[in-house]
Amino acid sequence: MSGGADGPDDAPAEPGTPPPPPRRRGRPARAADGAGPGARERILAAARTEFAERGYDKTSIRRIAKAAGVDSALVHHYFGTKEQVFAAAIELTFAPALTMPDALAGGGADVGERMARFMFGIWENPVSRQPLLAIMRSALTNDTAAAVLRGLIERRMLQRVAGELDVPDPEFRVQLAAGHLIGIAMLRYVIRMDPIASADTEAIIAMVAPALRRYLTQP
Amino acid sequence: MSGGADGPDDAPAEPGTPPPPPRRRGRPARAADGAGPGARERILAAARTEFAERGYDKTSIRRIAKAAGVDSALVHHYFGTKEQVFAAAIELTFAPALTMPDALAGGGADVGERMARFMFGIWENPVSRQPLLAIMRSALTNDTAAAVLRGLIERRMLQRVAGELDVPDPEFRVQLAAGHLIGIAMLRYVIRMDPIASADTEAIIAMVAPALRRYLTQP
Repeated sequence: MSGGADGPDDAPAEPGTPPPPPRRRGRPARAADGAGPGARERILAAARTEFAERGYDKTSIRRIAKAAGVDSALVHHYFGTKEQVFAAAIELTFAPALTMPDALAGGGADVGERMARFMFGIWENPVSRQPLLAIMRSALTNDTAAAVLRGLIERRMLQRVAGELDVPDPEFRVQLAAGHLIGIAMLRYVIRMDPIASADTEAIIAMVAPALRRYLTQP
Repeated sequence: MSGGADGPDDAPAEPGTPPPPPRRRGRPARAADGAGPGARERILAAARTEFAERGYDKTSIRRIAKAAGVDSALVHHYFGTKEQVFAAAIELTFAPALTMPDALAGGGADVGERMARFMFGIWENPVSRQPLLAIMRSALTNDTAAAVLRGLIERRMLQRVAGELDVPDPEFRVQLAAGHLIGIAMLRYVIRMDPIASADTEAIIAMVAPALRRYLTQP
């Protein structure tokens, strides 16, 4: 026993993250590697920023470690592989979007409008939009990133949504609805094609809500 | 006058490509640079392949030239900048999708189904799907590529679509419909999220067609 420096190894697994446990490459020496109070949180914050700004392909463990002021070994120690760091970072970034099932709770005639309003509420604010778009970009250009995002959404969102909707194939229905909104977001915020890029969100919501309602409620 | 080697400089501009004319960096020496019959077509084919396989960011004029067996100067000579080579390459790749307005001609109660069927007809064939997805990926990750794609679609598709539809704001309407299908394509072919990734196309078309019809026909 060498005392407190072993602490992180004893930390309980985070709730809701069943994927393979991080590889732990021995115990990092505290003085040299930047370990200490808040190191894990600093790494996670740095990972979030790096992945958002540079995408999955161009982000390395080394770069995340440097941004967090720690040794690469400590990143491996807490999170494992780059894929696992990404999983932890996007779970944090996706937290607001993961509450989407709440917006669908109880269904009702305005469920399509509530879903659209929820998504545009996140997207219209650049602070919440940028990291989400960055994740989408990573997932669209890298198979590993796509698999991580897929796992997160299946595990944390689709199962809950299925419980909120009283339709056949609720997961298929919500994917049709989410796909609709995601495609519009791509044209509006990424490709920035007019007129949809400069249209008033209320005009878009008014057009889209009936389509979403049909998916989410029609037997 | 030095005769036939100047030929390409005298070639008329391609129809339908109004953007800035290619920079022409003098006349390349034929023997060393791979010029000669079919050089332009070889370059275009190589550009198409390189952009499709590597994306906009990772493709260079040098690499295209190498794949086409010509000197980089000849690529500049025929097409100008990397952006302009990309524009020429994606115009070729997008040719099948650019006929989409034909599928909408005359409107009618089945116009939504025709649009969905047209798009899935292109996407379900890997030979036509891969290069289109590659362009989408490039446009989603690079602002210059996004601008080129935007210009192509505005110039070659949206204006025509507006003429085919008897609704207010036809360009907005067709973007809502296209955005819907593009988002589904992202979930199905790129993120590959189930159940939408393994759903029968007929099941998707049956669900989506009424939403598209509403956008394309409802006053």
